[in-house]
Amino acid sequence: MIYKALDNYVSKHSIVIIGNIDDYNWKKNYIFSQNNVISDINSVKTKGVYFLNVDKKDIVTDPSFEYVKKGVELALKKRVDAIVTAPISKEKWLRARIKYRGHTEFLVKRSEVNDYSMFFWSSNLKVALFTVHIPLREIFGHIRKDKIIKFIKFVNLELHKLFSKRFTFLISGLNPHSGENGFLGIEERDEIIPAIENLKSEIDIKGIFPPDVVFLKAKDIKDSVVISWYHDQGLIPFKLLNIHSGVNITLGLPYIRTSPDHGTAYDIAGKGIADPSSMKEAIKLAEQLLTLN
Amino acid sequence: MIYKALDNYVSKHSIVIIGNIDDYNWKKNYIFSQNNVISDINSVKTKGVYFLNVDKKDIVTDPSFEYVKKGVELALKKRVDAIVTAPISKEKWLRARIKYRGHTEFLVKRSEVNDYSMFFWSSNLKVALFTVHIPLREIFGHIRKDKIIKFIKFVNLELHKLFSKRFTFLISGLNPHSGENGFLGIEERDEIIPAIENLKSEIDIKGIFPPDVVFLKAKDIKDSVVISWYHDQGLIPFKLLNIHSGVNITLGLPYIRTSPDHGTAYDIAGKGIADPSSMKEAIKLAEQLLTLN
Repeated sequence: MIYKALDNYVSKHSIVIIGNIDDYNWKKNYIFSQNNVISDINSVKTKGVYFLNVDKKDIVTDPSFEYVKKGVELALKKRVDAIVTAPISKEKWLRARIKYRGHTEFLVKRSEVNDYSMFFWSSNLKVALFTVHIPLREIFGHIRKDKIIKFIKFVNLELHKLFSKRFTFLISGLNPHSGENGFLGIEERDEIIPAIENLKSEIDIKGIFPPDVVFLKAKDIKDSVVISWYHDQGLIPFKLLNIHSGVNITLGLPYIRTSPDHGTAYDIAGKGIADPSSMKEAIKLAEQLLTLN
Repeated sequence: MIYKALDNYVSKHSIVIIGNIDDYNWKKNYIFSQNNVISDINSVKTKGVYFLNVDKKDIVTDPSFEYVKKGVELALKKRVDAIVTAPISKEKWLRARIKYRGHTEFLVKRSEVNDYSMFFWSSNLKVALFTVHIPLREIFGHIRKDKIIKFIKFVNLELHKLFSKRFTFLISGLNPHSGENGFLGIEERDEIIPAIENLKSEIDIKGIFPPDVVFLKAKDIKDSVVISWYHDQGLIPFKLLNIHSGVNITLGLPYIRTSPDHGTAYDIAGKGIADPSSMKEAIKLAEQLLTLN
């Protein structure tokens, strides 16, 4: 998927793939000349695509974890400006007794940031998730006015840092029909709407919209971001609209990090048959954000 | 919306609009000749579009409620074979102290059925809702193995009665990633998956699929129905894919009942500017089901 994404890809930057060159059935001379396979980031001299080869002896746990770790270390040392992560297998990380459930959890921990958010970007829909990997029945404890205010302020600030522009925030309801004034749920009336009222003077914020309406609205409003309260409220519509083009951005990290929004397909890795569109979008967006910053 | 939906509409049946003719700015001679405005269903003699005029003196509560009531009465007396309901204003019904929250609740009560389900039909996606108009935090109490088995059997039976064919059921998860074996929620492991196992021998059932994947799957499988656990899990993707073409069917009634899947737009009612596509689809589907039955 990675080399297909970079096929005919014109970059303004140096792109470094981190991995072990023996693991991949790289088509001969496809991207890499002998000179472009490097073992030290200092070898990156001119614009181009490089393969930073992690030596097998340095791999003590799951290889994909080691490659991500290498990337984060380079980012924290400011040797790279952005990280684009490829999908990893959670099952493999689990079997290797890696305590992180995915890249995001690891990046957040390793980068020592307190606040972060998973943000999903595409040209026609942008979604920020208020809660992510928790059981659905646990979300209700998080829907608190001050937490919501803090979250939306954070997303607004981080998006402005990344994109150098202001977005319109569309606030989804949590319950059917946004709770119908308490008849179908109290969270909107007691927590979400008071939070919106509090933020209206400083942030371009619209809503509350029923969950089954807000994504239709967002499609019509340029530079709008939907605030979704839980994983699938945001990702059901996002994946439906962006089957091969969605990008996941982690807000709050001290470096740019993007990722395709889909999972692994290890069975076809390196075989050149995976759809590289979302990976390509993730690389393109990282580059675009570098240019804006 | 109604007369636009019927414009150039070729029907094999007699179509009767129920309302009060004075309320509408019907374009002169648009559909109705003087002969087609009737006050008694017995006046329907030949194929065509009729307007059953409910006399103002018979309207004691909200007019839209009276029209629906009239329709149900005719259906229960088997004087009509199918009902297509137009959107109503819940606020108006509430103000008129009508105790039903919408058509469906009223139809179910008036028709004295015990089991019913809201089913959403379109050419590319079909969704059955396991819970509908309850607060999100109350759904967990309903996710019980025996209730799920009963529900899916009911939907399977009713769909077979209506469509005279078998559907493939795709079962959605409830929690992010379908709970990841209990790590992100227990309902799949403890209730939903055991229910699926129980049904496998008698129903064509597939899953469990993560909520943000199941609707993408359904698009690719002909005659598939997604079982969704709550209102917005099903209606976010359904409305996104079928902005002007979704049809709501009530399963379990002793007559056919379809409805456009959107709400009212009273401010533009009768003005001829509403999009009639979904209403037209609802009428077409009702006719199609009549032909199959």
